[in-house]
Amino acid sequence: MSRSVDTWTIDSYSINVRISELSRQSGVSVASIKYYTREGLLPGGERRGYNQTDYTDAHLSRLRLIRALLEAGGLTIATVRNVVGAIDDPALPLIDAMAAAHHAIPAELTPASTGAMTQVRAVMEEVGWGAIGDHNPGVGMAAGILDLYAAADRPDLGRVMIEYARAAELVAEADLRVLAAAGSRERQVEAVVVGTVLGDVLLAGLRRIAQENKALQHYGESSPPEVGSAS
Amino acid sequence: MSRSVDTWTIDSYSINVRISELSRQSGVSVASIKYYTREGLLPGGERRGYNQTDYTDAHLSRLRLIRALLEAGGLTIATVRNVVGAIDDPALPLIDAMAAAHHAIPAELTPASTGAMTQVRAVMEEVGWGAIGDHNPGVGMAAGILDLYAAADRPDLGRVMIEYARAAELVAEADLRVLAAAGSRERQVEAVVVGTVLGDVLLAGLRRIAQENKALQHYGESSPPEVGSAS
Repeated sequence: MSRSVDTWTIDSYSINVRISELSRQSGVSVASIKYYTREGLLPGGERRGYNQTDYTDAHLSRLRLIRALLEAGGLTIATVRNVVGAIDDPALPLIDAMAAAHHAIPAELTPASTGAMTQVRAVMEEVGWGAIGDHNPGVGMAAGILDLYAAADRPDLGRVMIEYARAAELVAEADLRVLAAAGSRERQVEAVVVGTVLGDVLLAGLRRIAQENKALQHYGESSPPEVGSAS
Repeated sequence: MSRSVDTWTIDSYSINVRISELSRQSGVSVASIKYYTREGLLPGGERRGYNQTDYTDAHLSRLRLIRALLEAGGLTIATVRNVVGAIDDPALPLIDAMAAAHHAIPAELTPASTGAMTQVRAVMEEVGWGAIGDHNPGVGMAAGILDLYAAADRPDLGRVMIEYARAAELVAEADLRVLAAAGSRERQVEAVVVGTVLGDVLLAGLRRIAQENKALQHYGESSPPEVGSAS
């Protein structure tokens, strides 16, 4: 599992530090650093002699990435291992690294109904995503939510899907522009992984601001909305 | 805490069933139904005599909502209690019910840096959200992600924020249209709560499909992208 992290090359600009200093710089405890190394998330340091192991800037950067994925992304250790494995595998095509990131946060839904899958596929055709198959975990995620809306007696909430899809298209265009500017292949894969996992939270945050702004425009600060008829 | 759920009125069209039948229809175990009732998520059934308690369609619908929030939303019991409390409180203004939903999934990030908060506020001004204060948890969520991008040595990922904000605006417009069509105030509040919590997952799912579609257009199925220079 830790296949690729053993092969790290140490950058020439790196400054070697002891594990205690790496802990101080990263804010991650020595015990956690050792744990991440054992679990194959972080490559080991370089042995410099009896009782001395040196770490580099690359370790610091990777530690911060691991913390971001664990804390903000809510990923498990096993999932972070897959995700950093995708970054470190120089032979992995970009599209497969993206798939690893896409599978990192698959909301654990029960398999979607055929009806919901058909609804999602119809929207996919309409916005030009017809080439994408059901292997993409987003298809099941979207269909699973439609089922939950229906089960909670709120099928009306599913009517937003086409507009959500158009918004997702804008987001994906922005994501791809960042990717194209990312330079090396390793930096591109890292951008896909980090941007996919953490970008969901960025988008969710902005949606909350936009919702309050729209609600204030329509309904004002503290008065309940006028409604014409009971549902 | 279970203040409002005690005051449920039983709809005239309801068919009363025993707890075993409620369990069968909802797929939720009898033990879980009793647990949700004790925790104030679900109102108790109506006592019909010795050893008999009847449940209604309203209980079934609420049970499905609870399961959806717990499973797909990943909410805790305490958070679901707050969220269903918002639905059941007839005096709560819509904007406050929205705030309850907005706080239901606050990614637990460390407080954001001043620099990141300033960046988020600049984007908010640019897209016309200047009236929204930092009480909205989305502001801290977005700024926290910018900090994590920077900590993971990927400040370039933050450049997407303005485009994400424009996408969030489309999403919020769709959300508000559904809200306006929701009929009664109770149905509106329910739509806000359910749509906010589960809509994040719907959007995340659609984003994964859009990303793969864009990546296929740009980079093809299985060949790594050509890159000009190392980062």
